Amino acid sequence: MPHIELSPSLPGISAAFAFRPETAAPLRELAHILLFESGRTTSLSSRDRELIAAYVSSLNTCHFCRQSHGAAAAHHPGGSDELVNAVCANPRTADISPKLRALLAIAARVQADAKTVTPFLIEAACAEGATDLEIHDTVLIAAAFCMYNRYVDGLATWQPREAPMYAQMGEHLANKGYRTTSTPADGKR
Amino acid sequence: MPHIELSPSLPGISAAFAFRPETAAPLRELAHILLFESGRTTSLSSRDRELIAAYVSSLNTCHFCRQSHGAAAAHHPGGSDELVNAVCANPRTADISPKLRALLAIAARVQADAKTVTPFLIEAACAEGATDLEIHDTVLIAAAFCMYNRYVDGLATWQPREAPMYAQMGEHLANKGYRTTSTPADGKR
Repeated sequence: MPHIELSPSLPGISAAFAFRPETAAPLRELAHILLFESGRTTSLSSRDRELIAAYVSSLNTCHFCRQSHGAAAAHHPGGSDELVNAVCANPRTADISPKLRALLAIAARVQADAKTVTPFLIEAACAEGATDLEIHDTVLIAAAFCMYNRYVDGLATWQPREAPMYAQMGEHLANKGYRTTSTPADGKR
Repeated sequence: MPHIELSPSLPGISAAFAFRPETAAPLRELAHILLFESGRTTSLSSRDRELIAAYVSSLNTCHFCRQSHGAAAAHHPGGSDELVNAVCANPRTADISPKLRALLAIAARVQADAKTVTPFLIEAACAEGATDLEIHDTVLIAAAFCMYNRYVDGLATWQPREAPMYAQMGEHLANKGYRTTSTPADGKR
């Protein structure tokens, strides 16, 4: 049961967004720019950005964010549930580019303790072709999911276990992004 | 030295904001609403909101955020450097209201592991008069500073040690908030 009175029909972060629309606006906007819009305008694709988000959420064991962003990654070109599961299980053995593998190593350090991001890890990513913008966005995505995960879990929001709901949500996020105020999951309970 | 090429004249998060104005906008907006604006429109003051931010930043040992938000708390009515230091050292013995003490206990759990926020801690805060909105905002401020702190430390930004710079920054933040794109600290190096 949620720690505060949230709409019982809304899962995860959607319920927190509905409770406080004032803070929902910049929180949605940040996700839209970092995960959706920048995937079309920079060299780091939305699939890879969502994989970083799902991976950090799995490290934080946040079921709702792991499932919804994993589903979004799976719905972007080149994505699949198998790939998302492999990345979350172990980025070192997953079928991804060496660059993304190096960025995920940085993301893991940001999640655990951001002071442990070393010049060695940065140089390894640069050697695989990562740009300053890609390193910046990786650090910020990892940091942002340390916020979103804690927001979802800290309010004890309802986090459904049914996979189809997340698949539907992932398709919506991959196609429309995060600016819209409702997802197919709204009102599903 | 920062991990990516940031302006050498800008301290902490200001350098990251200047590097990526697209993500800076929602990140500034979130802080403005959560720490500044809501302090004037809800029952949780900006002083108390900044104390939560400084306390979480001290738990994450993020020097820049601890000093700048501590300075902001000190510049709001009822704030002082002594109070900020006492809260960061131990909220249980600091000269604050029982309600704020209970909210800081929730914030500490969100920082460590948001799943460990218990109904007991929520009931304790409610018993001291905390509303659902105050609990929501406490959880989100604590979660957000787990992001801001990681963003600042994960990029290895320049974090000056000189106290007067933070005092000047704190005065600006307490008076103007977070929407403005420059602070008195800009260009100080």
